[in-house]
Amino acid sequence: MSERISLAHGDGGEWAHKLIQDVFVRNFGHQKEAQLDAAPLSLSRAEIAFTTDSFVVRPIFFPGGNIGKLAVAGTVNDLAVTGAKPEYLTASFIIEEGFPISDLKSIVESMFQEAKKAGVRIVAGDTKVVERGSADGLYINTTGIGIFESEEKRVKPESIKEGDSIIISGTIGDHGIAILSARGELGIQTDLSSDCASLNHMIQDVLNVSNHVKMMRDPTRGGLATTLVEICEDFQITMEIEERSIPIKNQVHGASDILGFDPLYLANEGKIIFIVAKEDEDKVLHVLQRNNKGKDACVIGKVTSKDKGQLFITTPIGSKRRLNRLVGMQLPRIC
Amino acid sequence: MSERISLAHGDGGEWAHKLIQDVFVRNFGHQKEAQLDAAPLSLSRAEIAFTTDSFVVRPIFFPGGNIGKLAVAGTVNDLAVTGAKPEYLTASFIIEEGFPISDLKSIVESMFQEAKKAGVRIVAGDTKVVERGSADGLYINTTGIGIFESEEKRVKPESIKEGDSIIISGTIGDHGIAILSARGELGIQTDLSSDCASLNHMIQDVLNVSNHVKMMRDPTRGGLATTLVEICEDFQITMEIEERSIPIKNQVHGASDILGFDPLYLANEGKIIFIVAKEDEDKVLHVLQRNNKGKDACVIGKVTSKDKGQLFITTPIGSKRRLNRLVGMQLPRIC
Repeated sequence: MSERISLAHGDGGEWAHKLIQDVFVRNFGHQKEAQLDAAPLSLSRAEIAFTTDSFVVRPIFFPGGNIGKLAVAGTVNDLAVTGAKPEYLTASFIIEEGFPISDLKSIVESMFQEAKKAGVRIVAGDTKVVERGSADGLYINTTGIGIFESEEKRVKPESIKEGDSIIISGTIGDHGIAILSARGELGIQTDLSSDCASLNHMIQDVLNVSNHVKMMRDPTRGGLATTLVEICEDFQITMEIEERSIPIKNQVHGASDILGFDPLYLANEGKIIFIVAKEDEDKVLHVLQRNNKGKDACVIGKVTSKDKGQLFITTPIGSKRRLNRLVGMQLPRIC
Repeated sequence: MSERISLAHGDGGEWAHKLIQDVFVRNFGHQKEAQLDAAPLSLSRAEIAFTTDSFVVRPIFFPGGNIGKLAVAGTVNDLAVTGAKPEYLTASFIIEEGFPISDLKSIVESMFQEAKKAGVRIVAGDTKVVERGSADGLYINTTGIGIFESEEKRVKPESIKEGDSIIISGTIGDHGIAILSARGELGIQTDLSSDCASLNHMIQDVLNVSNHVKMMRDPTRGGLATTLVEICEDFQITMEIEERSIPIKNQVHGASDILGFDPLYLANEGKIIFIVAKEDEDKVLHVLQRNNKGKDACVIGKVTSKDKGQLFITTPIGSKRRLNRLVGMQLPRIC
């Protein structure tokens, strides 16, 4: 096989067949299912969550992961935050002519490893090749199915009420700054790694100790602030967070100051926001902090009322201001 | 809203929110589900088919359809050929900066209409924006879930036997030549339209009259020949088709002759290959021919033995030759 992807790898013929056998079937190992146009699956329950995400992150390899690991973890997390158990993924690749096959192999291998860690199976795939200059290396779509194993474990945003606690599972902005730093464009260099990780097992541990997890979200594009604003607007609740409670690494603070970014709007790929009943706050924190991926978990605020749909932040000097969605481009191709 | 897609439409902030509301939620109408990271679904059965496809066709608009219609029909057909009833799709968009928002709207509108025709719902989506030059306009991924309503309706490739009939639902190569012609690159012009269409209803009609449909495939990339070769190899059966039985439009014949293509390897987006028990041949043909999308359906060959895994074609002068997969690029970005 040639060492770089050619247009012939995407035409459905002999080369495409060899590529699929060599790169995909070998890793994913679903030879039999690959013979049909769709994978037949027998689900354990008919109550499911269904989600899709395309990944265009640049650079494709970055400290803490690559586009493949991110694609698996991102979709696993989108399923897990609904309370579903992620089970099956599809993976679809748009590859630029000339892309090194060795890079493709190592990305697919990462996907396989991340899927194994998360306990999900990649059961169907697709590969398209576009001419040089018609894509930037590689784009991946992952789409996933999760199973709702019981009603108790589903998130219940409609039960959010005044006094509920807002918990973040760790430091924010790590992914955003790690990616910017890896690009080397902005004159900053850090040894920060992306927090990119599948968090479904940690989430299940939380759901096992609390039946009062009302909402979970992973604050990816748009960051913590945008995600909280969306929750406020969608469910018409008002929340207040405290700036000094929000865990931020020094490197993220430093780089943000230099570059003029607000860490509240930086992407995360390994963090979860939990809205839980006040009485379950300690249980949830305890479970999170025992997990390496949740060791910096803390309460950052609370739900203050069930109207208006606004997000407020209290600054360290005690003043309060309203936060809105990010306006205008901050960081393209962060995921 | 500005008239072209900007990077800010992809950053997860205010502009992205407005784009999603304006272009997607309005059409798909799943406001409530769009508020969670994954759509919660209650399936009628837990036996499902799951498939994914990314679409990179160029040009984006072509006679008989556009990338959006193709993306819906393509995934609907991939589900339907397994015998499943297509029910839910996700749609994920990678958009190049500068892409006209009016084009995006009309593509999304086509997707909505095609989904309605096919009786499927688009329940989750994603939008990413990449810089000018990092994609060629627009790429779409659709991933779908179909339900196996009964065991009888599943394809049963393991029951294929000598004497089974091979049926094609209509003329081949229409999509391939329509796309080439629309590109205007190769000096040919035809009034041919792509056959791009969702065929799930037609397939269900066939399954309603026959319990002996053993295999169905849609011969897209790689065309009729490559798809049949795959079936032969995957299930270790030998098939023979007759060249003069294969329906091909004059325009497709003519353009293929001029350009040096073999219609057997040209992509189709609205045709199905059926392998059925000989005794059900007439019933299946009758149902197909009653349908406008199957009016040119005919028997093109038969299964000749259960070993070797080879495909043969008998030419009009009676000689027999073996067909293989397409080797090397014929038509990039055909779907």
